[in-house]
Amino acid sequence: MDLGTIIGLLLAFGGILGGQAIEGGSVGSLIQGTAAIIVLGGTFGACLIQFPLSVFIASMKSVSKALFAPKTRNRNVIAEIIRYANKARRQGIVSLESDVENIEDPFLKKALNMAVDGVEPKALRETMEVEMANMEEEGELPIKFWEAAGGYSPTIGIIGAVLGLIHVMENLADPSKLGQGIAVAFVATVYGVTMANVVYLPIAGKLKLRHKASMVAKEIILAGVVSILEGENPRLIEDKLKSYLNQDEQKTAPPAPMAQTKVA
Amino acid sequence: MDLGTIIGLLLAFGGILGGQAIEGGSVGSLIQGTAAIIVLGGTFGACLIQFPLSVFIASMKSVSKALFAPKTRNRNVIAEIIRYANKARRQGIVSLESDVENIEDPFLKKALNMAVDGVEPKALRETMEVEMANMEEEGELPIKFWEAAGGYSPTIGIIGAVLGLIHVMENLADPSKLGQGIAVAFVATVYGVTMANVVYLPIAGKLKLRHKASMVAKEIILAGVVSILEGENPRLIEDKLKSYLNQDEQKTAPPAPMAQTKVA
Amino acid sequence: MDLGTIIGLLLAFGGILGGQAIEGGSVGSLIQGTAAIIVLGGTFGACLIQFPLSVFIASMKSVSKALFAPKTRNRNVIAEIIRYANKARRQGIVSLESDVENIEDPFLKKALNMAVDGVEPKALRETMEVEMANMEEEGELPIKFWEAAGGYSPTIGIIGAVLGLIHVMENLADPSKLGQGIAVAFVATVYGVTMANVVYLPIAGKLKLRHKASMVAKEIILAGVVSILEGENPRLIEDKLKSYLNQDEQKTAPPAPMAQTKVA
Amino acid sequence: MDLGTIIGLLLAFGGILGGQAIEGGSVGSLIQGTAAIIVLGGTFGACLIQFPLSVFIASMKSVSKALFAPKTRNRNVIAEIIRYANKARRQGIVSLESDVENIEDPFLKKALNMAVDGVEPKALRETMEVEMANMEEEGELPIKFWEAAGGYSPTIGIIGAVLGLIHVMENLADPSKLGQGIAVAFVATVYGVTMANVVYLPIAGKLKLRHKASMVAKEIILAGVVSILEGENPRLIEDKLKSYLNQDEQKTAPPAPMAQTKVA
Amino acid sequence: MDLGTIIGLLLAFGGILGGQAIEGGSVGSLIQGTAAIIVLGGTFGACLIQFPLSVFIASMKSVSKALFAPKTRNRNVIAEIIRYANKARRQGIVSLESDVENIEDPFLKKALNMAVDGVEPKALRETMEVEMANMEEEGELPIKFWEAAGGYSPTIGIIGAVLGLIHVMENLADPSKLGQGIAVAFVATVYGVTMANVVYLPIAGKLKLRHKASMVAKEIILAGVVSILEGENPRLIEDKLKSYLNQDEQKTAPPAPMAQTKVA
Repeated sequence: MDLGTIIGLLLAFGGILGGQAIEGGSVGSLIQGTAAIIVLGGTFGACLIQFPLSVFIASMKSVSKALFAPKTRNRNVIAEIIRYANKARRQGIVSLESDVENIEDPFLKKALNMAVDGVEPKALRETMEVEMANMEEEGELPIKFWEAAGGYSPTIGIIGAVLGLIHVMENLADPSKLGQGIAVAFVATVYGVTMANVVYLPIAGKLKLRHKASMVAKEIILAGVVSILEGENPRLIEDKLKSYLNQDEQKTAPPAPMAQTKVA
Repeated sequence: MDLGTIIGLLLAFGGILGGQAIEGGSVGSLIQGTAAIIVLGGTFGACLIQFPLSVFIASMKSVSKALFAPKTRNRNVIAEIIRYANKARRQGIVSLESDVENIEDPFLKKALNMAVDGVEPKALRETMEVEMANMEEEGELPIKFWEAAGGYSPTIGIIGAVLGLIHVMENLADPSKLGQGIAVAFVATVYGVTMANVVYLPIAGKLKLRHKASMVAKEIILAGVVSILEGENPRLIEDKLKSYLNQDEQKTAPPAPMAQTKVA
Repeated sequence: MDLGTIIGLLLAFGGILGGQAIEGGSVGSLIQGTAAIIVLGGTFGACLIQFPLSVFIASMKSVSKALFAPKTRNRNVIAEIIRYANKARRQGIVSLESDVENIEDPFLKKALNMAVDGVEPKALRETMEVEMANMEEEGELPIKFWEAAGGYSPTIGIIGAVLGLIHVMENLADPSKLGQGIAVAFVATVYGVTMANVVYLPIAGKLKLRHKASMVAKEIILAGVVSILEGENPRLIEDKLKSYLNQDEQKTAPPAPMAQTKVA
Repeated sequence: MDLGTIIGLLLAFGGILGGQAIEGGSVGSLIQGTAAIIVLGGTFGACLIQFPLSVFIASMKSVSKALFAPKTRNRNVIAEIIRYANKARRQGIVSLESDVENIEDPFLKKALNMAVDGVEPKALRETMEVEMANMEEEGELPIKFWEAAGGYSPTIGIIGAVLGLIHVMENLADPSKLGQGIAVAFVATVYGVTMANVVYLPIAGKLKLRHKASMVAKEIILAGVVSILEGENPRLIEDKLKSYLNQDEQKTAPPAPMAQTKVA
Repeated sequence: MDLGTIIGLLLAFGGILGGQAIEGGSVGSLIQGTAAIIVLGGTFGACLIQFPLSVFIASMKSVSKALFAPKTRNRNVIAEIIRYANKARRQGIVSLESDVENIEDPFLKKALNMAVDGVEPKALRETMEVEMANMEEEGELPIKFWEAAGGYSPTIGIIGAVLGLIHVMENLADPSKLGQGIAVAFVATVYGVTMANVVYLPIAGKLKLRHKASMVAKEIILAGVVSILEGENPRLIEDKLKSYLNQDEQKTAPPAPMAQTKVA
């Protein structure tokens, strides 16, 4: 888990539970099995009606992507493409056929394969842009899942609270149980709002950033392969691809491959 | 009904009603005919004022589309188009005239018919894109209907609750009926919020995904027919059309027709 | 009034008032002159500050458009354009000069007039698209008026309720009037929320659908006149224009003019 | 002030205060200096943190633009441009140099100046479109200011109410002051919600309409000057520019200059 | 800190705290350590889960950008570019090579460097537009951070209030502590709503304006360098670039460099 997420979880739950403890409230009174059943059951039930089972599974898997920072490899991708560009310049684009076999990234593999097969730059770009558009939509499904969960959770929490209040109101004759009953009812609200604001929505937000970053990598690959296919100067290609990096990545870009490129 | 929807409905209603039962509240006190009359009458009344009767009927029919998973046939559509592409390549596009008769999908039928009639690719694309745009808007109407129902339902629920509270307040002199009256009033809120969050909005969300998938099928057809009309290589057409498939579909695409295509 | 709207109004008001009556609340207690003064005065006052008087008047007139279904005439429009296309093919576009006089629709009249005057297709399209864009914006003003009313109404209702509660609180010493006072206060909320959800917002939604349909008619006219000007085949024009119809209209399109067209 | 705004202000404040008076509440109890300090101070404070001082000043000035109807002059603008078009046709575009001096509108002046200077139509369009885009953004700032005020005001009102309630709760021991205290607290809510819904948001809405109308005037000017520069027929220019007028303006357009134009 | 922000902070906090003091409430009762722990902990915890640590740090740094007005330098940038344009016109674009070394702004440096290197205008524009798009997205992250904080804060405040109310309800038997307990609970709401509306959201709004202004500077640079590369007339370049200035900047633009330019 990356440092920020750990600090975030500690801050959020520590602040909320710690504040309650300092104020003299028992943290135990916040643990209510039935409230959890209503809020979690209602939220994920609604999400399962809205989304196909496959999206539910993908959304569960996506949580780890949100919590752990992926190794940023955009600089490596650029270095790899510049290597191919230099080779294509010296030995012709067909010489890349042997390299294509060993490429792991299926997107880069498909694009380079089409380039080696002699597909026109315009057709290659169109085909790969359709592929990217579909990747983009597919990757947005888990984001929409967690946003939906973040939307349902507080209202299901309110349903839980109102159910509790109805229960309380029916027993209004016995005032001694009144306060306790209302307290239990309110816990459902706390669950619904907390899960939405500290878990579901932050996960959706983090996933959105990660997804955008992964799409930038595809854009770099597509721009690079098309440039290779059009026989552009490797140095210009590098300038162009480095424009996709953010300011930090540009500053820390390794000098070695650049030098090598300039020589080539 | 697909598995996810069944689990979702069980989870949502099971969680909410089960939680209420565990807590000791009688589930029977949640069944209030008048609250249902107010909330359902108000919600569907508002929707019927907003939407023409034909959209109301289409929206009711669309529920089954949301609950049952359609057989995905994008791979079959691609295989069919590749077959036509091979035939057109060998025997000329006019040879497809006999095939057009037997096509079920009216969109594919119309597109291929125009192609056989010798319509220019650009005019064909323009005409079919207008058709697609209208299909897209028409298919969005049931989605908007259920989103509207999901928007009206909680506020109508609040109207029901406030009406109940007004009734309670007028009889404030008799405190013994107070709690019971408030409980009844709150049930309208529960109905309004639950129907919106567990039924209407998830249905709208599911319909949106299904509608998008059905539009992708039209995009595949249009791209394929235009490519056939332009006499593109069937193998390139297949590469292009397979870009519209999502990652799962691409992996499980049947190898046989591909091999056949490559031979052609 | 179209059937759906009648059913909708009966359902909505019948459900809300009927539910109240069944529950034993007197419907009479929901009729509060002062609440109506506050809620309606505040809502329409805010709308009159936001919109010019001319938009207010247009919005009032637009209500009938929302309640009564207009006769759909897109099929007639297409038939008319095909007739002009055939005549222009046989006798030259200038022969339409005599027809232009008798055209009622000012949009079709202006477009055909320009075509007869020998304006280039590109200039004609640009001019008429500016006209359409302005029609589109002008037609959206009543929609925005009713959406604004639907936004102001519930909050003005809350203002009415809080004003009533302030009045109640100042007289807290006399508890016998407490319940009655709160009941009166709540009626303002019911008015604000009900008017927004059962009247203003559904009208805005219906107007939006009607407006979109009327703009499609303009698109058909523009596409048709440009096609005539470019001397396209009437049969192709008909194929193109029929793409603008929705699925139902396409199925029920009268066969006669088509046959006639094919002969032409 | 235009008639609609006056009626709107009377309706809104008359309805709210009148309703309160009819119900027997003293209007005086709605005048609370501290509530006003909290709500106005908080709202404009937040706005001043969000917007630069210059935008605050521009927003204050813009209020008069929202309240008073500007004379619509689009028809005059068109007549002026047609006059220039006729002169340019007869005597060459350089003959407009003497007219440019006397033009008041800086946008028209700059555009015509570039045209007289011999700038290419494409370059002129690009430059003036950048100018228009910046005018559009600059004119949106006061709209955003009042929308922001409309967003902050109700929540600041709630802060005022909660502050009042806290004050009340601390003195719960003295129930005689309870009702009065709560009444005072609620006034802050009334202020926050009323200012937002009857003042800030309607002003923002009116400004948006005015701003859009003023941008249409710029579009007319740009389209007209480019057409003059391209040597188009003045009659066609007039047809084109009149497409920017709304239906009312088109009907009431003065016939005289048109006739004159047709002669030219 | 710029004058507007200072006035804004004084107005907002002065109004809220002053109003409370005038009303007789002790300002001290608004200082609650535990409420602050819950609200700030929860808000920034949620934000840290949603955003990477680097964005959190950038967002903290961005506060000073929001509070202090940057020196607007768009006019200087234009003057600088016009100087280069004149030099490039007289001595050829390669003569700018010596100037590039001393340019501070990395965006202008990179663009001019590519121009001197002989990159085609179209390729230069494409590369720099990718760079701008990435700068735009990167600069939006702190804005989104503060908007997210403004979204989480009120709901975390409500969590704090409900937690406090639960604590109160459990001790309902001791009515003497009731009011005090509720008062403490409400302070969390005040914290959550105030921080969002007086701090987080105004900062986000101010940052948005600043970010837009800084992107306009990049647009000016790109348009200018491309124009130099295409060998446009320096006077036309100046006209074009000055279109990016707002009305105030255009009026106060220093006359000297213009005169100099016209001479050149």
